[in-house]
Amino acid sequence: MKRMLAVCATIAALDCAAAAAPDAGKTIAMKGSATGAPPCTSCHGAQGEGNAAAGFPRLAALGQSYFVRQLDAFAHDRRKSPVMAPVAKALDPAQASAVARYFSSLPAAATPAPPRDAATSGALLAQAGRWSESRLPACNQCHGPDGSGVGDSFPPLLGQPAAYIKAQLVAWHDGARAPGPQALMKTVASKLSVADMDAISGYFGGAAPAAGAAPPAGTIRDAAQVAHKDGFTPPPESAIPDDEFGKLVRRGKAIFIDTKKNAAAFVGNDLNCVNCHLDAGRLAGSAPLWGAYVAYPQFRSKTGRIDDYADRLQGCFQFSMNGKAPPLGSDVLRALEAYSSWMATGAPVRTRMAGAGYAKVARPTGGGDHARGARLYEERCALCHGAAGAGQRARNVQVFPPLWGSRSFNWGAGMHQLNNAAAFVAANMPLGQGGTLDAAQAWDVAYFMDAHERPQDPRFTGSVAETRRKYHDSEDSLYGLTVKGQVLGAGR
Amino acid sequence: MKRMLAVCATIAALDCAAAAAPDAGKTIAMKGSATGAPPCTSCHGAQGEGNAAAGFPRLAALGQSYFVRQLDAFAHDRRKSPVMAPVAKALDPAQASAVARYFSSLPAAATPAPPRDAATSGALLAQAGRWSESRLPACNQCHGPDGSGVGDSFPPLLGQPAAYIKAQLVAWHDGARAPGPQALMKTVASKLSVADMDAISGYFGGAAPAAGAAPPAGTIRDAAQVAHKDGFTPPPESAIPDDEFGKLVRRGKAIFIDTKKNAAAFVGNDLNCVNCHLDAGRLAGSAPLWGAYVAYPQFRSKTGRIDDYADRLQGCFQFSMNGKAPPLGSDVLRALEAYSSWMATGAPVRTRMAGAGYAKVARPTGGGDHARGARLYEERCALCHGAAGAGQRARNVQVFPPLWGSRSFNWGAGMHQLNNAAAFVAANMPLGQGGTLDAAQAWDVAYFMDAHERPQDPRFTGSVAETRRKYHDSEDSLYGLTVKGQVLGAGR
Repeated sequence: MKRMLAVCATIAALDCAAAAAPDAGKTIAMKGSATGAPPCTSCHGAQGEGNAAAGFPRLAALGQSYFVRQLDAFAHDRRKSPVMAPVAKALDPAQASAVARYFSSLPAAATPAPPRDAATSGALLAQAGRWSESRLPACNQCHGPDGSGVGDSFPPLLGQPAAYIKAQLVAWHDGARAPGPQALMKTVASKLSVADMDAISGYFGGAAPAAGAAPPAGTIRDAAQVAHKDGFTPPPESAIPDDEFGKLVRRGKAIFIDTKKNAAAFVGNDLNCVNCHLDAGRLAGSAPLWGAYVAYPQFRSKTGRIDDYADRLQGCFQFSMNGKAPPLGSDVLRALEAYSSWMATGAPVRTRMAGAGYAKVARPTGGGDHARGARLYEERCALCHGAAGAGQRARNVQVFPPLWGSRSFNWGAGMHQLNNAAAFVAANMPLGQGGTLDAAQAWDVAYFMDAHERPQDPRFTGSVAETRRKYHDSEDSLYGLTVKGQVLGAGR
Repeated sequence: MKRMLAVCATIAALDCAAAAAPDAGKTIAMKGSATGAPPCTSCHGAQGEGNAAAGFPRLAALGQSYFVRQLDAFAHDRRKSPVMAPVAKALDPAQASAVARYFSSLPAAATPAPPRDAATSGALLAQAGRWSESRLPACNQCHGPDGSGVGDSFPPLLGQPAAYIKAQLVAWHDGARAPGPQALMKTVASKLSVADMDAISGYFGGAAPAAGAAPPAGTIRDAAQVAHKDGFTPPPESAIPDDEFGKLVRRGKAIFIDTKKNAAAFVGNDLNCVNCHLDAGRLAGSAPLWGAYVAYPQFRSKTGRIDDYADRLQGCFQFSMNGKAPPLGSDVLRALEAYSSWMATGAPVRTRMAGAGYAKVARPTGGGDHARGARLYEERCALCHGAAGAGQRARNVQVFPPLWGSRSFNWGAGMHQLNNAAAFVAANMPLGQGGTLDAAQAWDVAYFMDAHERPQDPRFTGSVAETRRKYHDSEDSLYGLTVKGQVLGAGR
């Protein structure tokens, strides 16, 4: 009993309630509750595997916290369901938690991974999104590799019945389901057509939902979605030629998307190129590769010389990836250069293109506030990047990038500068909701992010003060300054 | 006397006549001839220095052979001059040669070099020509550094009176002076306006000629000149920015123009980049830098991989310059890349632009004929490149490039391939008279040029036959074939 109390002191109260009655959840699941809830397994299957034909979702391995929140939403009508509302209302918090715990402990049936190379619209929406046209993130950017779920807030899509997935998208679109954390799914659903919803739900659910199932009311594609007309459209993926050059372009893309895996020797943290250059480097306003490629060679004050594109790529590895510069002429640089140049096909050499880089955001007086930034971070960023800024992983893949700490970009990276970070945040964060923070908010968040410790600048001279004088003598850098009693750059 | 005869046997007959009477030339120059020629020095000055005010040319150091040919032209009315015709007619060949020998032995007064950096139209025409608009070569491309003269056929311009220079240009234009060797000067004059003639003559003559002196009849700019509209015009020299990038661009241009001097460590022959890429790399149809820059990265069968622009530049040094590849990231490659990218400003990335490379010329049956090529070479090429293909030097500068032999491009260079050489010749040779040889003639000349020995291919495997199999298995390469009893590539 003493031991049990000690455990209770360290885990959440709900867990303790369940821990006190280990079989309570299973009993409710199999037989229903004394308070009138029917057995969950009647609809959701004996092992919580769901019912594809009826569109009843899988409950097994769903995640306890997520499960409890869904029951709460049904009980309080944030998810409208005539079937689930009375069930959820019949369970008290301890019962709900017990059921959640039970189903979370059941293994999900192995579901074959969806086809990654398919050029179907479902595969494209799941893996690439539709950034340029409507700033629609890919499903997998939040739901993880193959949509298999990430953490507490991004449930698995893979293996859920197609009809269920589609019904949820329709419900978010129509307001029948609450907008969800930060209205992310409301935003997403507003950018989807009925055909898109069918494609996505079919992709993850293994089959298209029955036609006519829950047809959405009205025109479903949101007319308010922003078309980004920046005067340049990179060629579509399908235009990558089927020859030696095309091979190198594809290799470049693979490195760009999954840098840690495909250029391992040169990466010293948990980031990938695509973290700062959204939509595989295509997206205007997110430092697209086509905008960068045509800007080089150029003088950079950072290096004090004219850098060409390969030189510039080296800098990314050294600083943003906290790694080592791939040698000039190496396969990694050649592949990234090929990918970039292909993306810039037709773009004018040595011009500043609309949509290149990150659009500057005016520096507010003071340049950002730590306390306001911390509040905003908690509200808008922590869901994905975590309270400690460490990002989130799933199935051994870094789904959300770490923003500070030992696995993030180092003190020499461009993103450690407030102006760059604020510009990136304003245009692109939260993911798919770029433009929803104003300039001052973007600076506050940037300040909070960049006021954390991270790996040392590789140009470190041995003295933080001297390194600041030499490389960071700018109001955009917090390196070497004291924030919250800590000299940044001095390590911990 | 025996010794004198031996000398006579080894030098030209005219020289012998003069040698027999060493003071005859001086006597005629100072006092006139018994046959009625007045003293040359009356008009041309006591030291043959000319008379700038009157427009009488300098005779000192003019070059004996050129001098004799001019007297002959005056005597036979190919140069029309009421003053010089009776003088020239009064001298027999021995007298003419003696006078020529005398004046050629006199030193030319030191003339300050004209301002090389001036952006006046005279400086531009003298140093850069007007290639893109009218395929007009620079004066100095034939008349040598600062127009100080090259060999027997390209007299010094520097230090000749402005009025004299202008009068000659007008005379060529109007037909009052015979077209000259290969009609080169007739071609040049046809592309000049009166203002151009004033600018050029002022540039070399140190002062503008008197206004109204010998006004040319009719519209002097030839309407037949070809405007090369290829859809892309590189920025003008004047647009090179005045910043760090501009500095590197200028350095790149300096390397491009005078490669041997400015990239000495990587050049193993007497060529400069500009020899194959006319007009400082700007000229459409002559493998312009803007056309090349936007074509990379690309797959090259020569290297069997995707080369980027720096890789491609390395190849130029290794083969065309018979030297060593500057390392990736080296100053030389950076500068050439900067220069090229600047020239491509605004050109679309990864496109095949009109005017890029050399326009292909259809291969005639048989692919070129040695005997016909030899004849054409003698008629059209030897004037500049020399009978032995060694080019011509002046003031320690290689004015006309060597086309074969130890100081030319090696067996690995693109220009050793008949298709490339024929394309270059057809479009660009003789200098400023591109398009005057037909396809079959271009192939014949290319064949003759490329059927000469040159430095070994640096990829030589130790066996000519094997090297041909590996690298030259093409009807466009004569490497390893037997021509005129000689196995090409086997050295001598």
